[in-house]
Amino acid sequence: MLVTLTTDFGWSDGFVGAMKGVILGINPDATIVDITHDVAPQNVEQGALLFSAAAKYFPAKTVHVVVVDPGVGSARRAIAIQAGKTIFVAPDNGVLTQAIGDCQLTADDSKIRAVHLNKPAYWLPRVSNTFHGRDIFAPAGAHLSGGVPLEELGDPIDDWIRLPRASALRSGNEITGRVVHIDRFGNIITNIGEEMLTGLDYTRVIVGIGATQVRGVRQSYSDVVRGEFIALISSSWQLEVAAREGSAARVLGTHIGDQVLVTLDRD
Amino acid sequence: MLVTLTTDFGWSDGFVGAMKGVILGINPDATIVDITHDVAPQNVEQGALLFSAAAKYFPAKTVHVVVVDPGVGSARRAIAIQAGKTIFVAPDNGVLTQAIGDCQLTADDSKIRAVHLNKPAYWLPRVSNTFHGRDIFAPAGAHLSGGVPLEELGDPIDDWIRLPRASALRSGNEITGRVVHIDRFGNIITNIGEEMLTGLDYTRVIVGIGATQVRGVRQSYSDVVRGEFIALISSSWQLEVAAREGSAARVLGTHIGDQVLVTLDRD
Amino acid sequence: MLVTLTTDFGWSDGFVGAMKGVILGINPDATIVDITHDVAPQNVEQGALLFSAAAKYFPAKTVHVVVVDPGVGSARRAIAIQAGKTIFVAPDNGVLTQAIGDCQLTADDSKIRAVHLNKPAYWLPRVSNTFHGRDIFAPAGAHLSGGVPLEELGDPIDDWIRLPRASALRSGNEITGRVVHIDRFGNIITNIGEEMLTGLDYTRVIVGIGATQVRGVRQSYSDVVRGEFIALISSSWQLEVAAREGSAARVLGTHIGDQVLVTLDRD
Repeated sequence: MLVTLTTDFGWSDGFVGAMKGVILGINPDATIVDITHDVAPQNVEQGALLFSAAAKYFPAKTVHVVVVDPGVGSARRAIAIQAGKTIFVAPDNGVLTQAIGDCQLTADDSKIRAVHLNKPAYWLPRVSNTFHGRDIFAPAGAHLSGGVPLEELGDPIDDWIRLPRASALRSGNEITGRVVHIDRFGNIITNIGEEMLTGLDYTRVIVGIGATQVRGVRQSYSDVVRGEFIALISSSWQLEVAAREGSAARVLGTHIGDQVLVTLDRD
Repeated sequence: MLVTLTTDFGWSDGFVGAMKGVILGINPDATIVDITHDVAPQNVEQGALLFSAAAKYFPAKTVHVVVVDPGVGSARRAIAIQAGKTIFVAPDNGVLTQAIGDCQLTADDSKIRAVHLNKPAYWLPRVSNTFHGRDIFAPAGAHLSGGVPLEELGDPIDDWIRLPRASALRSGNEITGRVVHIDRFGNIITNIGEEMLTGLDYTRVIVGIGATQVRGVRQSYSDVVRGEFIALISSSWQLEVAAREGSAARVLGTHIGDQVLVTLDRD
Repeated sequence: MLVTLTTDFGWSDGFVGAMKGVILGINPDATIVDITHDVAPQNVEQGALLFSAAAKYFPAKTVHVVVVDPGVGSARRAIAIQAGKTIFVAPDNGVLTQAIGDCQLTADDSKIRAVHLNKPAYWLPRVSNTFHGRDIFAPAGAHLSGGVPLEELGDPIDDWIRLPRASALRSGNEITGRVVHIDRFGNIITNIGEEMLTGLDYTRVIVGIGATQVRGVRQSYSDVVRGEFIALISSSWQLEVAAREGSAARVLGTHIGDQVLVTLDRD
């Protein structure tokens, strides 16, 4: 059974290694895949975004363990949610919202079940106050990947936290959004989904970001020359601003949260 | 069979990839887990610390390969040590000291056996002078994970190098320790184990680090407000100084090796 | 079946996680190994170098997926090449040249077959314009690792792109090469292969790099004192300049592409 890990633990301190030791100690047959461990520390919204973008490419029968957990040691709950055959394990802080939302598109809503992970029999014998990734979430994911039914691990809940989706707004031919991610290449990813651009003439679209305006939504990086800015649909099907073989974010000085304004040229 | 890797090779150069190719070529059934590859170059003490903190969370029947090896190419020995069912492969420079020590707590001392990896039949055919991780340690770990008995790989030894454990010192109610690790979040980990605090009233403890004094040993990050300093017991059960949702080490200007002084408030 | 991944996608954005989800969805039995994901963005030559250095340590029956792809979305072809039992999947930009060259040394030339990956049945249903690693290369690698014959995935070709090998030049006892990689430790790797030094007296060799001259080609780092420069044969069997327990590249201010001049001392 496949188990994925998404955390803000980084790769350097051995935290993720310890989690894998715990998982394979409980379920030696688990196949563990790292999605990322470079979520900015305690940034739940970024974790939700990066996780959901990758999670949809995994097979249905996967256990996803997501630990971005500013509330570790507080009263925040540890939860597990099953949507169809897919299982999610995380702190109850909204980090699963987008990924569960993606599942709902194909699964029968009534099939979404959630539990509060409050049965110590499925935790490590000694639980620290600072590393529930190792002591609670990893063992829960391991037991679930080994076939233990969801309801064995805790009491049913239905009030798990949903993060409000910070959607872009469209008014006529004008869309106001913002930058939600800057990837390794310096490509600027916005929260303006492809579907928001419906009906707009891509050749007349103006994408404004800072003082810069990029004209047209093109097909691919190769439609412009090296270093030139380009707007296009990202691999997550969102509006993206890039610079061919360069870092758009560095050249433009763009940061996460910056506003993006889409308008339509008159001509 | 599980094989873990801990090195100072980093993730970028493909060194670890080559080690995994060697291991899977010899034992296709091995499950390989990375603990970390970001040990500071040639820092044996840090490698020992990060490795031992994660290693104890792996099942007993694991082969751990640890390569932090400032002496590569010199006369330092390559060794393998079996403690109970757990096997360790490393250069003979003390990097295994803490992890073996942890094993000794549960295993019968007489069951610790060690060999000098001096049988070329279990190395790669051509051995470089700079990358024994690939040419000697990876093949040794692979053969051992495949069931080859320890003594096949080399001659028995019992004088493998132990690093002196740089313990903190307690005198009455005063403990003098130092910073041994700063993690990704900027949390400051000391060499003052939880057991050294036995008998002290946690509410009256003062943790001094640089010019800063943190009062009380608390339960969890959520016991203070955002940005505030807190002393607590780390996930490795050592005294830790942190700042909630912030980097204590950056704010305090703390470095590995800095002194930490624990005293008891009179009031 | 073993599948390796080499990309310039980094570890942070979840790109590699998505690729692994795709592969394991198609072939649940695949064992996936990362070679590196830190190839400098769009640097095909560096990707070729790091990949080939590690690839030769994998067993013959491996599927290697290499995605360093400045031309993604353009007319450049996606290809797969089989050399003996080893299969390579990559954009057709020369990134495989060195690794295929290494195979040719042992395999019958007539056994090298290549196809253009132009059969959409073996892609993901929806292909983005910016992430063929996930949408084309990962599924191709997964199907091939699962036993689908190469020719099922596309039409045969024989004009796949070979990069000219930027070899060093030897004239008498003088060799002119350049720096092709600087590793994590700051060791400087040149394109001067061990075989180019044939017949030279190692004790009289002078390696010039910038204004510095290093005398002698030694056996191992331990032949010099801490901090001292040393020339030796690297683990990829190329001339390397290092500083024992230090970073030669940082001290010397060396960059990739810098010239390296080997001469012979008269004395």
